[in-house]
Amino acid sequence: MNISILAVGTELLMGKTVNTNATYLSEQINALGHNVLYHLTVGDNPVRLKDTLNYLLEHSDMVVTTGGLGPTQDDLTKEVICETLDLKMEKHDLAYNMLIERFKQFNVEMTSNNIKQAYLPIACIPMMNQKGTAPGFIAEKDGKYIAVLPGPPYEMKHMYENSLRPFLEELSDSVIMSEYIHLFGIGESSAESVIDDLITDQSDPTIAMYASVGQVSIRVTSKANDFDTCYERIQNTTAEIVSRLEPYVIGFGETSLLDETIKLLHDNYMTVALAESCTGGMLASELIQFPGASQYFDLGLVTYSNESKMNLLKVEPDILETYGAVSAETCEAMLHGLRHLSFSDVLVSVTGIAGPTGGTPDKPVGLVYIGIMLGDSIQVKKFNFTGDRLTIRKRSMLNAINMIREALKP
Amino acid sequence: MNISILAVGTELLMGKTVNTNATYLSEQINALGHNVLYHLTVGDNPVRLKDTLNYLLEHSDMVVTTGGLGPTQDDLTKEVICETLDLKMEKHDLAYNMLIERFKQFNVEMTSNNIKQAYLPIACIPMMNQKGTAPGFIAEKDGKYIAVLPGPPYEMKHMYENSLRPFLEELSDSVIMSEYIHLFGIGESSAESVIDDLITDQSDPTIAMYASVGQVSIRVTSKANDFDTCYERIQNTTAEIVSRLEPYVIGFGETSLLDETIKLLHDNYMTVALAESCTGGMLASELIQFPGASQYFDLGLVTYSNESKMNLLKVEPDILETYGAVSAETCEAMLHGLRHLSFSDVLVSVTGIAGPTGGTPDKPVGLVYIGIMLGDSIQVKKFNFTGDRLTIRKRSMLNAINMIREALKP
Repeated sequence: MNISILAVGTELLMGKTVNTNATYLSEQINALGHNVLYHLTVGDNPVRLKDTLNYLLEHSDMVVTTGGLGPTQDDLTKEVICETLDLKMEKHDLAYNMLIERFKQFNVEMTSNNIKQAYLPIACIPMMNQKGTAPGFIAEKDGKYIAVLPGPPYEMKHMYENSLRPFLEELSDSVIMSEYIHLFGIGESSAESVIDDLITDQSDPTIAMYASVGQVSIRVTSKANDFDTCYERIQNTTAEIVSRLEPYVIGFGETSLLDETIKLLHDNYMTVALAESCTGGMLASELIQFPGASQYFDLGLVTYSNESKMNLLKVEPDILETYGAVSAETCEAMLHGLRHLSFSDVLVSVTGIAGPTGGTPDKPVGLVYIGIMLGDSIQVKKFNFTGDRLTIRKRSMLNAINMIREALKP
Repeated sequence: MNISILAVGTELLMGKTVNTNATYLSEQINALGHNVLYHLTVGDNPVRLKDTLNYLLEHSDMVVTTGGLGPTQDDLTKEVICETLDLKMEKHDLAYNMLIERFKQFNVEMTSNNIKQAYLPIACIPMMNQKGTAPGFIAEKDGKYIAVLPGPPYEMKHMYENSLRPFLEELSDSVIMSEYIHLFGIGESSAESVIDDLITDQSDPTIAMYASVGQVSIRVTSKANDFDTCYERIQNTTAEIVSRLEPYVIGFGETSLLDETIKLLHDNYMTVALAESCTGGMLASELIQFPGASQYFDLGLVTYSNESKMNLLKVEPDILETYGAVSAETCEAMLHGLRHLSFSDVLVSVTGIAGPTGGTPDKPVGLVYIGIMLGDSIQVKKFNFTGDRLTIRKRSMLNAINMIREALKP
């Protein structure tokens, strides 16, 4: 089915709000095997809304609208749709009772403006709003569908998942499946060049790459008439990709570098302690972002100044003077200092030049040393990262996490 | 002038990319006094692109397109536009020389595919791409304008700022100015209710509110025929808003809570040391995000476990047992412990329950104590934050920064 998405709201045209609704709905709708033909955004203007609605209905089998369902005079999506499609409205008991329920729950008095929200087209399928007051609906006219969703993303997503998705699933005749392969330690373009032929030749499965700082994920998606075909195609392509990129693969599906690393700490009943310089607490903050962090996180030190490295970590002034704060020697001395302050199984130290100032020809911005101590074994790695200050700090943080993962993986 | 924005790219309709270009351009175009009537997104499909282009040209004075300017066969924006508007193309020397320059700079060989990028409509205004290879252009046909920009946001923004904005400024007959008022310590809806009448009555200046975790900003914008009128209107409205929200105002224009706080540390030649529990390094990481942080940042400790609080900060086991790790007493003891490890002027400690687990009826999730020591003076504040784990940690971090700001402000 060919579907268009129509967003209603002047705030979108003012550039105050990003239309993430269109992106969310498009990903969802494509995953069900339907096609998205157009995104269109129009302001709270009845003439233009009517005009665009007609345009999209003419060019698609279904139009999904978001926004303009509130109780105020600005909110006119429902009224304009009904006028355009010549649909009569009536008070729907289900919608009315939901409204009363919702206002009780929010402890707010219901006004006559709110009662207009209970009016929906006579022959429609109402969609209940579990997170707000405005109900939505699905209506049909001359073989075309229109689905009306609220604008706030949180309300919209709940309504889509509970009401519109099951409806769209019924209307789709294909099965869609995806697998994700997560990589670390290779850039997007390098990874792409390794599987370039698979991407170029793709018809099904399709291969898509996603990259954020330091991390690359590959999505393999297949669309077929039956589950078994879908599954087999995905297995084959995934196996081929993994065979080419094996050293960089950190996991599949719903996982991440951090998830994998914390899982290893948990599984090994190990705790970690940190001495951070250029990452400045970012590594600690990342590691404790999940509840239960106290089981694997002991202590973090942000020894940003030379004084704190000497006073707290007992790094010898000699070492700092001879080799500098950003050196393999200081990085290792930080680990030894940390050893006296923590009994943790895994110790990690980071020191580097995040920039944009402070670089020299010998020690440029982006030079970072990361050290790890596990039992008696010490490893210090040297990195030359590119990017701005935040990117260099993030890359340092992620590579420190990866060094924990590599040290612990079976 | 009424302007529409047309995004070209199948990846947008697949839900892989959010159309932030439309948001950016809309904010910019509105700020110049022009109106944005529609956003439309269409895939890399010549028939649909031609059709939507005609629709938008019919309904607006200018269409701005983004995307589809690359060297591959998929990239067809320019060709379809020229066909639709019946514009002949020729090789533009300026564009060709820029391409040669760009490829030298990127150290990549130029292919015949790339040469097609130097072809532009004969009578157009070329727009140079300083961040990529694809040039853009502005063309006119029957009194309507079309402006063609590349898709990658970084390239698009540079081209807009350097070439399209000056063109649009010429065509605008009004002056637009904005002032920003930044607040801390008050929620968006509370702030809104205080200036509700100003918002409801607004015609000019207009008042818009922006909120992120713990921070609220108010934008006051005026559009007038001359600078003086604009300026006076903004001054009057800003003064009225400030008089009502004075205790929460942290600054104006291009500033933030963090900027104001670091400025105070700089101005007072002061350094800071931290002992963090629930924020877990987030506060340190936030404070050192600017270069030159070593001038005001001494030391950060992430004492997440009770052991680390006892071992490193010498918090008495008695205090932890009697009052608990999340208590005013522990928070103060952390400051005293930190005093023995750092000579910093400002000491800050944070301890709390970030959740989602670990809460009790007496000490619910969101209970956070933040302590600050300046000279001999100690202050410990108790907070009850709402939100998920990350939000509670962020609110704690921001309120700790605000306590530094309040302690140092003249």
